[in-house]
Amino acid sequence: MLLISNDDGYHAKGLKLLISMVRHLGEIIVVAPESARSGFSGAFSSTIPLRLKLRRQEEGVSIYSCNGTPVDCVKLALSEICPRRPDIVIGGINHGDNASVNTHYSGTMGVTIEGCMKHIPSVAFSLCDHDDNADFSLMKNIVTNITEKILKEGLPNGVCLNVNFPVVNQYNGVKICRMAKGTWGKEVVRMHHPRNYEYYWLIGEYINDEPSSEDTDSWALIHGYVAITPTTIDVTAYEMIDKMKSWTFE
Amino acid sequence: MLLISNDDGYHAKGLKLLISMVRHLGEIIVVAPESARSGFSGAFSSTIPLRLKLRRQEEGVSIYSCNGTPVDCVKLALSEICPRRPDIVIGGINHGDNASVNTHYSGTMGVTIEGCMKHIPSVAFSLCDHDDNADFSLMKNIVTNITEKILKEGLPNGVCLNVNFPVVNQYNGVKICRMAKGTWGKEVVRMHHPRNYEYYWLIGEYINDEPSSEDTDSWALIHGYVAITPTTIDVTAYEMIDKMKSWTFE
Repeated sequence: MLLISNDDGYHAKGLKLLISMVRHLGEIIVVAPESARSGFSGAFSSTIPLRLKLRRQEEGVSIYSCNGTPVDCVKLALSEICPRRPDIVIGGINHGDNASVNTHYSGTMGVTIEGCMKHIPSVAFSLCDHDDNADFSLMKNIVTNITEKILKEGLPNGVCLNVNFPVVNQYNGVKICRMAKGTWGKEVVRMHHPRNYEYYWLIGEYINDEPSSEDTDSWALIHGYVAITPTTIDVTAYEMIDKMKSWTFE
Repeated sequence: MLLISNDDGYHAKGLKLLISMVRHLGEIIVVAPESARSGFSGAFSSTIPLRLKLRRQEEGVSIYSCNGTPVDCVKLALSEICPRRPDIVIGGINHGDNASVNTHYSGTMGVTIEGCMKHIPSVAFSLCDHDDNADFSLMKNIVTNITEKILKEGLPNGVCLNVNFPVVNQYNGVKICRMAKGTWGKEVVRMHHPRNYEYYWLIGEYINDEPSSEDTDSWALIHGYVAITPTTIDVTAYEMIDKMKSWTFE
Protein backbone atom coordinates (compact mmCIF):
# COMPACT_ATOMS: atom_id res chain seq x y z
CA MET A 1 0.00 0.00 0.00
CA LEU A 2 1.34 3.42 -1.03
CA LEU A 3 0.31 6.53 0.89
CA ILE A 4 0.61 9.73 -1.14
CA SER A 5 0.24 13.35 -0.11
CA ASN A 6 1.54 16.71 -1.32
CA ASP A 7 1.36 20.42 -0.61
CA ASP A 8 -0.20 21.54 -3.91
CA GLY A 9 -3.61 20.02 -3.18
CA TYR A 10 -5.45 16.83 -4.17
CA HIS A 11 -6.34 18.24 -7.60
CA ALA A 12 -2.73 19.08 -8.59
CA LYS A 13 -1.33 17.74 -11.84
CA GLY A 14 1.87 16.54 -10.17
CA LEU A 15 -0.13 14.35 -7.79
CA LYS A 16 -2.20 12.86 -10.61
CA LEU A 17 0.91 12.08 -12.64
CA LEU A 18 2.59 10.51 -9.60
CA ILE A 19 -0.40 8.18 -9.19
CA SER A 20 -0.11 7.11 -12.83
CA MET A 21 3.61 6.40 -12.38
CA VAL A 22 3.29 4.11 -9.33
CA ARG A 23 -0.22 2.64 -9.34
CA HIS A 24 1.01 -0.68 -10.73
CA LEU A 25 3.11 -1.09 -7.56
CA GLY A 26 0.21 -1.50 -5.12
CA GLU A 27 -2.96 -0.04 -3.69
CA ILE A 28 -2.83 3.77 -3.63
CA ILE A 29 -4.28 5.92 -0.86
CA VAL A 30 -4.09 9.68 -1.32
CA VAL A 31 -4.86 12.13 1.47
CA ALA A 32 -3.92 15.61 0.27
CA PRO A 33 -4.81 19.19 1.19
CA GLU A 34 -8.04 20.52 -0.28
CA SER A 35 -6.12 23.49 -1.69
CA ALA A 36 -2.51 24.62 -2.08
CA ARG A 37 -0.36 24.58 1.07
CA SER A 38 3.06 25.49 -0.28
CA GLY A 39 5.62 26.57 2.29
CA PHE A 40 3.79 24.81 5.13
CA SER A 41 6.89 22.90 6.22
CA GLY A 42 6.19 20.48 9.10
CA ALA A 43 3.23 22.51 10.39
CA PHE A 44 0.30 20.65 11.91
CA SER A 45 -3.06 21.95 13.13
CA SER A 46 -3.66 21.83 16.86
CA THR A 47 -6.46 24.39 17.10
CA ILE A 48 -8.80 23.72 14.16
CA PRO A 49 -11.14 20.74 13.70
CA LEU A 50 -9.97 18.67 10.73
CA ARG A 51 -12.17 17.05 8.14
CA LEU A 52 -11.69 14.40 5.48
CA LYS A 53 -13.63 14.10 2.22
CA LEU A 54 -13.55 11.14 -0.15
CA ARG A 55 -13.13 12.75 -3.58
CA ARG A 56 -12.66 9.78 -5.90
CA GLN A 57 -12.45 6.02 -5.65
CA GLU A 58 -11.63 3.62 -8.42
CA GLU A 59 -9.83 0.31 -8.87
CA GLY A 60 -6.88 0.45 -6.45
CA VAL A 61 -6.92 4.23 -5.91
CA SER A 62 -8.73 6.21 -3.19
CA ILE A 63 -8.35 10.00 -3.06
CA TYR A 64 -9.28 12.00 0.02
CA SER A 65 -8.90 15.71 0.71
CA CYS A 66 -8.28 17.29 4.11
CA ASN A 67 -8.75 20.88 5.25
CA GLY A 68 -5.42 20.86 7.11
CA THR A 69 -1.71 20.92 6.36
CA PRO A 70 0.34 18.30 4.50
CA VAL A 71 1.47 16.86 7.84
CA ASP A 72 -2.16 16.71 9.05
CA CYS A 73 -2.94 14.68 5.92
CA VAL A 74 -0.35 12.06 6.82
CA LYS A 75 -1.41 11.87 10.47
CA LEU A 76 -5.10 11.47 9.54
CA ALA A 77 -4.34 8.98 6.77
CA LEU A 78 -2.34 6.74 9.10
CA SER A 79 -4.89 6.93 11.88
CA GLU A 80 -8.23 7.00 10.01
CA ILE A 81 -7.86 5.87 6.39
CA CYS A 82 -5.14 3.28 5.92
CA PRO A 83 -6.38 -0.21 6.84
CA ARG A 84 -2.77 -1.17 7.63
CA ARG A 85 0.63 0.47 7.84
CA PRO A 86 1.61 1.72 4.34
CA ASP A 87 4.74 0.30 2.74
CA ILE A 88 5.85 3.76 1.67
CA VAL A 89 4.89 7.42 2.09
CA ILE A 90 5.40 9.59 -1.01
CA GLY A 91 5.24 13.38 -1.12
CA GLY A 92 4.66 15.03 -4.48
CA ILE A 93 5.19 15.37 -7.25
CA ASN A 94 5.77 18.92 -6.13
CA HIS A 95 5.44 21.80 -8.55
CA GLY A 96 8.73 23.51 -7.67
CA ASP A 97 12.26 23.00 -6.38
CA ASN A 98 12.66 21.54 -2.86
CA ALA A 99 16.45 21.24 -2.88
CA SER A 100 18.92 23.02 -0.58
CA VAL A 101 17.39 25.02 2.29
CA ASN A 102 13.96 24.80 0.65
CA THR A 103 13.67 21.47 2.43
CA HIS A 104 13.03 23.46 5.64
CA TYR A 105 10.01 25.25 4.15
CA SER A 106 8.62 22.51 1.94
CA GLY A 107 5.23 20.99 2.70
CA THR A 108 6.18 18.11 0.42
CA MET A 109 9.16 17.41 2.66
CA GLY A 110 6.78 17.88 5.62
CA VAL A 111 4.87 14.85 4.28
CA THR A 112 8.05 12.84 3.83
CA ILE A 113 9.58 13.71 7.19
CA GLU A 114 6.27 12.86 8.88
CA GLY A 115 6.22 9.44 7.18
CA CYS A 116 9.84 8.89 8.21
CA MET A 117 9.10 9.90 11.82
CA LYS A 118 6.43 7.18 11.79
CA HIS A 119 9.17 4.70 10.75
CA ILE A 120 7.78 4.24 7.24
CA PRO A 121 10.17 4.46 4.26
CA SER A 122 9.46 7.89 2.77
CA VAL A 123 10.41 9.90 -0.28
CA ALA A 124 9.62 13.30 -1.81
CA PHE A 125 9.61 13.96 -5.55
CA SER A 126 9.79 17.53 -6.85
CA LEU A 127 10.14 19.08 -10.30
CA CYS A 128 11.91 22.45 -10.57
CA ASP A 129 8.92 24.04 -12.31
CA HIS A 130 6.21 25.94 -10.43
CA ASP A 131 3.82 25.99 -13.38
CA ASP A 132 0.40 24.43 -12.67
CA ASN A 133 0.68 22.70 -16.01
CA ALA A 134 4.34 21.63 -15.75
CA ASP A 135 5.47 18.64 -17.83
CA PHE A 136 6.28 15.70 -15.54
CA SER A 137 6.51 13.03 -18.23
CA LEU A 138 10.31 12.74 -18.37
CA MET A 139 10.37 11.81 -14.65
CA LYS A 140 8.34 8.63 -15.02
CA ASN A 141 11.02 5.92 -15.22
CA ILE A 142 13.12 7.33 -12.40
CA VAL A 143 10.13 7.95 -10.08
CA THR A 144 8.93 4.38 -10.68
CA ASN A 145 12.42 2.96 -10.27
CA ILE A 146 13.13 4.77 -6.98
CA THR A 147 9.73 3.84 -5.57
CA GLU A 148 10.26 0.17 -6.51
CA LYS A 149 13.72 0.24 -4.96
CA ILE A 150 12.40 1.64 -1.68
CA LEU A 151 9.49 -0.83 -1.61
CA LYS A 152 11.95 -3.68 -2.09
CA GLU A 153 14.82 -2.60 0.15
CA GLY A 154 13.33 -0.07 2.58
CA LEU A 155 15.34 2.80 4.00
CA PRO A 156 17.25 3.05 7.27
CA ASN A 157 15.20 4.29 10.22
CA GLY A 158 15.37 8.08 10.47
CA VAL A 159 16.44 8.65 6.85
CA CYS A 160 14.15 9.74 4.00
CA LEU A 161 14.88 10.83 0.43
CA ASN A 162 14.44 14.26 -1.12
CA VAL A 163 14.46 13.79 -4.91
CA ASN A 164 14.50 16.84 -7.20
CA PHE A 165 14.27 16.83 -11.00
CA PRO A 166 15.63 19.59 -13.27
CA VAL A 167 13.68 20.93 -16.24
CA VAL A 168 15.61 19.53 -19.21
CA ASN A 169 14.98 17.52 -22.35
CA GLN A 170 17.17 14.68 -21.14
CA TYR A 171 18.74 13.92 -17.74
CA ASN A 172 22.53 13.71 -17.53
CA GLY A 173 22.07 11.05 -14.85
CA VAL A 174 21.14 10.68 -11.20
CA LYS A 175 23.41 12.02 -8.45
CA ILE A 176 23.37 11.22 -4.74
CA CYS A 177 23.95 14.64 -3.18
CA ARG A 178 24.33 16.62 -0.03
CA MET A 179 22.10 19.62 0.62
CA ALA A 180 23.61 22.81 -0.82
CA LYS A 181 24.16 25.81 1.44
CA GLY A 182 21.98 28.64 0.21
CA THR A 183 20.26 31.80 1.37
CA TRP A 184 16.93 33.39 0.54
CA GLY A 185 17.00 37.18 0.25
CA LYS A 186 14.83 40.07 -0.97
CA GLU A 187 11.90 38.22 0.56
CA VAL A 188 9.52 41.04 1.40
CA VAL A 189 7.62 43.35 -0.96
CA ARG A 190 5.88 46.26 0.74
CA MET A 191 2.56 47.39 -0.74
CA HIS A 192 0.20 50.24 -0.04
CA HIS A 193 -3.47 49.34 0.40
CA PRO A 194 -6.16 51.64 -1.06
CA ARG A 195 -7.44 52.00 2.53
CA ASN A 196 -4.10 53.62 3.38
CA TYR A 197 -2.12 51.03 5.28
CA GLU A 198 1.01 49.01 4.51
CA TYR A 199 0.96 45.29 3.86
CA TYR A 200 3.54 42.79 2.66
CA TRP A 201 3.94 39.86 0.28
CA LEU A 202 6.63 37.24 0.83
CA ILE A 203 8.52 36.25 -2.30
CA GLY A 204 12.32 36.08 -2.47
CA GLU A 205 15.43 35.27 -4.46
CA TYR A 206 17.52 32.19 -3.75
CA ILE A 207 21.28 32.53 -3.70
CA ASN A 208 23.42 29.40 -3.89
CA ASP A 209 26.23 29.98 -1.36
CA GLU A 210 28.45 27.31 -2.91
CA PRO A 211 27.72 27.20 -6.65
CA SER A 212 30.90 25.30 -7.53
CA SER A 213 30.40 22.42 -5.07
CA GLU A 214 29.74 19.45 -7.34
CA ASP A 215 28.51 17.21 -4.53
CA THR A 216 25.43 19.37 -3.81
CA ASP A 217 21.83 19.04 -4.94
CA SER A 218 21.74 22.57 -6.34
CA TRP A 219 24.81 21.89 -8.51
CA ALA A 220 23.29 18.65 -9.80
CA LEU A 221 20.03 20.34 -10.77
CA ILE A 222 21.76 23.23 -12.55
CA HIS A 223 23.83 20.73 -14.50
CA GLY A 224 20.91 18.57 -15.64
CA TYR A 225 21.12 15.76 -13.10
CA VAL A 226 18.34 14.34 -10.95
CA ALA A 227 19.39 15.10 -7.35
CA ILE A 228 18.72 12.62 -4.53
CA THR A 229 19.49 14.08 -1.12
CA PRO A 230 19.23 11.55 1.71
CA THR A 231 17.74 13.51 4.59
CA THR A 232 17.94 12.89 8.32
CA ILE A 233 15.37 13.29 11.09
CA ASP A 234 18.16 13.68 13.64
CA VAL A 235 19.17 17.34 13.27
CA THR A 236 21.80 17.33 16.02
CA ALA A 237 24.91 19.31 15.04
CA TYR A 238 27.25 16.61 16.37
CA GLU A 239 30.47 18.47 15.61
CA MET A 240 29.24 21.26 17.92
CA ILE A 241 28.72 19.02 20.96
CA ASP A 242 32.41 18.69 21.78
CA LYS A 243 33.07 22.39 21.16
CA MET A 244 30.37 23.29 23.69
CA LYS A 245 31.69 21.02 26.43
CA SER A 246 33.93 23.89 27.57
CA TRP A 247 30.97 26.27 28.03
CA THR A 248 30.12 27.12 31.62
CA PHE A 249 26.65 28.03 32.89
CA GLU A 250 26.00 29.85 36.13
CA MET B 1 20.31 44.42 18.94
CA LEU B 2 18.31 41.34 19.92
CA LEU B 3 15.47 40.12 17.68
CA ILE B 4 12.87 38.05 19.53
CA SER B 5 9.92 36.07 18.25
CA ASN B 6 7.91 33.06 19.40
CA ASP B 7 4.96 30.88 18.45
CA ASP B 8 2.73 31.61 21.44
CA GLY B 9 1.95 35.20 20.39
CA TYR B 10 3.24 38.65 21.33
CA HIS B 11 1.16 38.71 24.52
CA ALA B 12 2.55 35.42 25.91
CA LYS B 13 4.03 35.34 29.40
CA GLY B 14 7.13 33.44 28.21
CA LEU B 15 7.94 36.22 25.75
CA LYS B 16 7.50 38.94 28.37
CA LEU B 17 9.75 37.09 30.81
CA LEU B 18 12.37 36.54 28.12
CA ILE B 19 12.45 40.29 27.46
CA SER B 20 13.01 40.95 31.18
CA MET B 21 15.88 38.44 31.25
CA VAL B 22 17.87 39.89 28.33
CA ARG B 23 16.91 43.56 27.98
CA HIS B 24 20.08 44.71 29.72
CA LEU B 25 22.07 43.12 26.88
CA GLY B 26 20.96 45.50 24.14
CA GLU B 27 18.08 47.01 22.22
CA ILE B 28 15.17 44.57 21.94
CA ILE B 29 12.96 44.23 18.87
CA VAL B 30 10.05 41.80 19.13
CA VAL B 31 8.01 40.72 16.11
CA ALA B 32 5.69 37.93 17.20
CA PRO B 33 2.45 36.37 15.96
CA GLU B 34 -0.74 38.21 16.93
CA SER B 35 -2.09 34.95 18.39
CA ALA B 36 -0.84 31.43 19.16
CA ARG B 37 0.88 29.57 16.31
CA SER B 38 2.06 26.41 18.03
CA GLY B 39 3.08 23.57 15.73
CA PHE B 40 3.73 25.91 12.80
CA SER B 41 7.23 24.59 12.23
CA GLY B 42 9.07 26.42 9.44
CA ALA B 43 5.85 27.44 7.67
CA PHE B 44 5.75 30.79 5.90
CA SER B 45 2.86 32.56 4.18
CA SER B 46 3.06 32.87 0.41
CA THR B 47 -0.61 33.52 -0.34
CA ILE B 48 -1.87 35.96 2.31
CA PRO B 49 -1.00 39.64 2.67
CA LEU B 50 0.96 40.18 5.88
CA ARG B 51 0.59 43.07 8.27
CA LEU B 52 2.62 44.48 11.14
CA LYS B 53 1.28 46.39 14.14
CA LEU B 54 3.34 48.29 16.67
CA ARG B 55 1.89 47.19 20.02
CA ARG B 56 4.23 48.78 22.56
CA GLN B 57 7.34 50.91 22.58
CA GLU B 58 9.38 51.90 25.60
CA GLU B 59 13.02 52.54 26.46
CA GLY B 60 14.98 49.98 24.45
CA VAL B 61 12.06 47.66 23.66
CA SER B 62 9.75 47.69 20.61
CA ILE B 63 7.02 45.07 20.30
CA TYR B 64 5.27 44.38 16.99
CA SER B 65 2.66 41.77 16.12
CA CYS B 66 2.23 40.10 12.74
CA ASN B 67 -0.75 38.19 11.33
CA GLY B 68 1.52 35.47 9.90
CA THR B 69 3.62 32.55 11.12
CA PRO B 70 6.68 32.66 13.39
CA VAL B 71 8.92 32.45 10.30
CA ASP B 72 6.99 35.31 8.67
CA CYS B 73 7.73 37.39 11.79
CA VAL B 74 11.47 36.89 11.39
CA LYS B 75 11.44 37.62 7.66
CA LEU B 76 9.41 40.82 8.13
CA ALA B 77 11.48 41.91 11.12
CA LEU B 78 14.75 41.58 9.21
CA SER B 79 13.41 43.30 6.12
CA GLU B 80 11.12 46.00 7.54
CA ILE B 81 11.75 46.62 11.24
CA CYS B 82 15.39 46.10 12.23
CA PRO B 83 17.50 49.15 11.37
CA ARG B 84 20.53 46.85 11.11
CA ARG B 85 21.33 43.16 11.23
CA PRO B 86 20.48 41.84 14.74
CA ASP B 87 23.29 40.34 16.81
CA ILE B 88 21.10 37.41 17.81
CA VAL B 89 17.69 35.90 17.03
CA ILE B 90 15.90 34.37 20.03
CA GLY B 91 12.79 32.19 19.88
CA GLY B 92 10.73 31.83 23.03
CA ILE B 93 10.41 31.38 25.83
CA ASN B 94 8.11 28.67 24.57
CA HIS B 95 5.34 27.31 26.74
CA GLY B 96 6.10 23.61 26.17
CA ASP B 97 8.80 21.07 25.36
CA ASN B 98 10.63 21.42 22.03
CA ALA B 99 13.15 18.63 22.54
CA SER B 100 13.53 15.45 20.47
CA VAL B 101 11.41 15.25 17.30
CA ASN B 102 9.30 18.18 18.51
CA THR B 103 11.97 20.34 16.93
CA HIS B 104 10.42 19.43 13.54
CA TYR B 105 7.01 20.80 14.53
CA SER B 106 8.04 23.71 16.72
CA GLY B 107 7.28 27.27 15.63
CA THR B 108 9.84 28.43 18.19
CA MET B 109 12.48 26.37 16.38
CA GLY B 110 11.04 27.78 13.13
CA VAL B 111 12.10 31.22 14.39
CA THR B 112 15.55 29.98 15.37
CA ILE B 113 16.21 28.03 12.18
CA GLU B 114 15.10 31.05 10.14
CA GLY B 115 17.55 33.29 12.02
CA CYS B 116 20.30 30.73 11.50
CA MET B 117 19.51 30.47 7.78
CA LYS B 118 20.05 34.23 7.64
CA HIS B 119 23.51 33.66 9.16
CA ILE B 120 22.59 35.26 12.49
CA PRO B 121 23.49 33.43 15.74
CA SER B 122 20.16 31.99 16.91
CA VAL B 123 18.77 30.18 19.92
CA ALA B 124 15.41 28.82 21.11
CA PHE B 125 14.41 28.65 24.78
CA SER B 126 11.53 26.40 25.88
CA LEU B 127 10.10 25.38 29.23
CA CYS B 128 8.48 21.94 29.52
CA ASP B 129 5.20 23.42 30.76
CA HIS B 130 2.30 24.27 28.44
CA ASP B 131 0.44 26.31 31.06
CA ASP B 132 -0.31 29.93 30.03
CA ASN B 133 0.81 30.97 33.48
CA ALA B 134 3.90 28.73 33.74
CA ASP B 135 6.66 29.80 36.13
CA PHE B 136 9.76 30.83 34.13
CA SER B 137 11.66 32.46 37.00
CA LEU B 138 14.17 29.65 37.63
CA MET B 139 15.41 29.94 34.01
CA LYS B 140 16.63 33.51 34.35
CA ASN B 141 20.36 33.06 35.03
CA ILE B 142 20.86 30.38 32.42
CA VAL B 143 18.88 32.21 29.73
CA THR B 144 20.89 35.37 30.37
CA ASN B 145 24.16 33.46 30.50
CA ILE B 146 23.58 31.59 27.21
CA THR B 147 22.45 34.77 25.46
CA GLU B 148 25.54 36.65 26.68
CA LYS B 149 27.78 33.79 25.58
CA ILE B 150 26.27 33.76 22.07
CA LEU B 151 26.48 37.57 21.80
CA LYS B 152 30.16 37.41 22.77
CA GLU B 153 31.32 34.35 20.83
CA GLY B 154 28.74 33.83 18.10
CA LEU B 155 27.86 30.40 16.74
CA PRO B 156 29.26 28.54 13.73
CA ASN B 157 27.41 29.21 10.49
CA GLY B 158 24.55 26.74 10.02
CA VAL B 159 24.29 25.77 13.70
CA CYS B 160 21.69 27.07 16.16
CA LEU B 161 20.83 26.07 19.72
CA ASN B 162 17.66 24.39 20.98
CA VAL B 163 17.55 24.89 24.78
CA ASN B 164 14.89 23.14 26.86
CA PHE B 165 14.26 23.55 30.59
CA PRO B 166 12.64 20.94 32.84
CA VAL B 167 10.02 21.82 35.43
CA VAL B 168 11.90 21.35 38.71
CA ASN B 169 12.72 23.27 41.87
CA GLN B 170 16.45 23.24 41.11
CA TYR B 171 18.42 22.24 38.03
CA ASN B 172 20.89 19.36 38.30
CA GLY B 173 23.04 21.20 35.76
CA VAL B 174 23.23 21.93 32.04
CA LYS B 175 23.92 19.16 29.53
CA ILE B 176 24.98 19.46 25.88
CA CYS B 177 22.86 16.80 24.20
CA ARG B 178 21.93 15.10 21.01
CA MET B 179 18.29 14.95 19.90
CA ALA B 180 16.51 11.90 21.31
CA LYS B 181 14.77 9.49 18.96
CA GLY B 182 11.07 9.55 19.74
CA THR B 183 7.69 8.89 18.16
CA TRP B 184 4.32 10.57 18.47
CA GLY B 185 1.34 8.22 18.54
CA LYS B 186 -2.40 8.23 19.29
CA GLU B 187 -2.51 11.57 17.52
CA VAL B 188 -6.06 11.67 16.20
CA VAL B 189 -9.32 11.91 18.16
CA ARG B 190 -12.45 11.40 16.06
CA MET B 191 -15.53 13.42 17.04
CA HIS B 192 -19.09 13.49 15.89
CA HIS B 193 -20.53 16.90 15.04
CA PRO B 194 -24.16 17.72 16.02
CA ARG B 195 -24.75 18.29 12.27
CA ASN B 196 -23.93 14.61 11.77
CA TYR B 197 -20.45 14.51 10.30
CA GLU B 198 -17.07 13.32 11.57
CA TYR B 199 -14.24 15.66 12.42
CA TYR B 200 -10.88 15.23 14.09
CA TRP B 201 -8.63 16.86 16.68
CA LEU B 202 -4.88 16.33 16.65
CA ILE B 203 -3.37 15.63 20.06
CA GLY B 204 -0.95 12.76 20.71
CA GLU B 205 1.31 10.92 23.11
CA TYR B 206 5.08 11.13 22.87
CA ILE B 207 7.09 7.95 23.27
CA ASN B 208 10.82 8.19 23.92
CA ASP B 209 12.38 5.47 21.74
CA GLU B 210 15.61 5.46 23.72
CA PRO B 211 14.80 6.34 27.34
CA SER B 212 18.09 5.05 28.74
CA SER B 213 20.37 7.06 26.40
CA GLU B 214 22.01 9.54 28.76
CA ASP B 215 23.39 11.72 25.96
CA THR B 216 19.93 12.77 24.73
CA ASP B 217 17.87 15.88 25.40
CA SER B 218 14.86 13.85 26.56
CA TRP B 219 16.98 12.00 29.13
CA ALA B 220 18.45 15.27 30.42
CA LEU B 221 15.01 16.85 30.87
CA ILE B 222 13.55 13.83 32.67
CA HIS B 223 16.55 13.86 35.02
CA GLY B 224 16.33 17.54 35.92
CA TYR B 225 19.00 18.95 33.59
CA VAL B 226 18.70 21.87 31.21
CA ALA B 227 19.20 20.36 27.73
CA ILE B 228 21.10 22.24 25.01
CA THR B 229 20.84 20.53 21.64
CA PRO B 230 23.05 22.11 18.96
CA THR B 231 20.97 21.90 15.79
CA THR B 232 22.05 21.89 12.17
CA ILE B 233 20.53 23.50 9.08
CA ASP B 234 22.23 20.91 6.88
CA VAL B 235 19.91 17.89 7.15
CA THR B 236 21.86 15.65 4.76
CA ALA B 237 22.05 12.05 6.00
CA TYR B 238 25.76 11.77 5.14
CA GLU B 239 26.15 8.15 6.19
CA MET B 240 23.52 7.26 3.57
CA ILE B 241 25.35 8.86 0.63
CA ASP B 242 27.94 6.11 0.31
CA LYS B 243 25.34 3.37 0.79
CA MET B 244 23.34 4.77 -2.12
CA LYS B 245 26.26 4.99 -4.53
CA SER B 246 25.51 1.38 -5.55
CA TRP B 247 21.91 2.20 -6.51
CA THR B 248 21.15 2.11 -10.22
CA PHE B 249 18.37 4.06 -11.88
CA GLU B 250 17.07 2.92 -15.19
